[in-house]
Amino acid sequence: MKILLVGATGTIGKAAATALSPRHEVVAVSHRAGPIRVDLADKASIASLFQSVGRVDAVVSTAGAARFGALAALGDEDFAVSLANKLMGQVNLVRVGVASVADGGSFTLTSGVLSHTPMPGSAAISLVNAGLEGFARAAALELPRSIRINVVSPGWVRETLVAMKMDPATGTPASAVARFYVQSVEGNTTGTVLNAVAPEGM
Amino acid sequence: MKILLVGATGTIGKAAATALSPRHEVVAVSHRAGPIRVDLADKASIASLFQSVGRVDAVVSTAGAARFGALAALGDEDFAVSLANKLMGQVNLVRVGVASVADGGSFTLTSGVLSHTPMPGSAAISLVNAGLEGFARAAALELPRSIRINVVSPGWVRETLVAMKMDPATGTPASAVARFYVQSVEGNTTGTVLNAVAPEGM
Repeated sequence: MKILLVGATGTIGKAAATALSPRHEVVAVSHRAGPIRVDLADKASIASLFQSVGRVDAVVSTAGAARFGALAALGDEDFAVSLANKLMGQVNLVRVGVASVADGGSFTLTSGVLSHTPMPGSAAISLVNAGLEGFARAAALELPRSIRINVVSPGWVRETLVAMKMDPATGTPASAVARFYVQSVEGNTTGTVLNAVAPEGM
Repeated sequence: MKILLVGATGTIGKAAATALSPRHEVVAVSHRAGPIRVDLADKASIASLFQSVGRVDAVVSTAGAARFGALAALGDEDFAVSLANKLMGQVNLVRVGVASVADGGSFTLTSGVLSHTPMPGSAAISLVNAGLEGFARAAALELPRSIRINVVSPGWVRETLVAMKMDPATGTPASAVARFYVQSVEGNTTGTVLNAVAPEGM
């Protein structure tokens, strides 16, 4: 398959590229690096992306910014950026991209564990993650030509915990998270949220 | 308790007012009617509302517009209105209103069954409902002074089904839905989604 991977330079994106590459042609896209770039917060940028890449069999997004911060400290702009980028950016990947996806193809988007297991500081992120999951459940009922859509909800990623100098023992290795993207792309489920949490040692 | 009820003229809002009034002082607010009005999509309007109403023990919202329409037909404006009104309008009720809520008080917001049980046409509404639930779960961890927050997720309301000339047999009477708002206001749970569906005859 030809797979458009948006967010290819992030921790999860790199692992997804590694996992998908042996069997698929991965077109790697990111916000800031590489020959093909996209600004998820800009619908015109998404349209340009699909125009330049042409027909694909699958779209995988491991991208999208949302703001972490105490509820009392989150400002209007923090919510606006989170909604425009991680939420509507990925929604618009579907709305704009559907015409470029082959019959029977798929979208795989990314939410995160804070959707259902919040922590102090996650109000905007929890909103965005849960909203994306709600959108995908609904969109699955309407996408044309047997196109599927799923959301991968990664737990805490071990490499991220290490970078944040937190205890990595509870984290899921990025390579294990990546397997859920492969499962979404190669499987036949639609409208599902894949909780990408792997037990120690996977 | 003094309870600010936003959305008091809607089908569910009227039933909530009826259920809460015997034991509480209900300050009824709506978008288009009555002496006190608010535009949920306008944060300044929400600030004016709390300024005029003063301290309250509970805020109940049965308000918020979101757009129903086929995924392929929903435009940017449909998503923008849905996000600004039912989602961020209710989020901003909390952000702006928290300073006006008494110690140990509560917020009760409204999502809906389409959050987790979508139907064709519900992509924007499902997004908004699920996002609101994600926000509430997270905000519950951070609200100060033991203030609680819950979301009531009404199933299909019998009176709405009748108005839409659909089969009312599967609907929950508005009076039964209203009991879940009473439960949220008078109970002690926080961060929960109350699925307001009642079996036939309740």
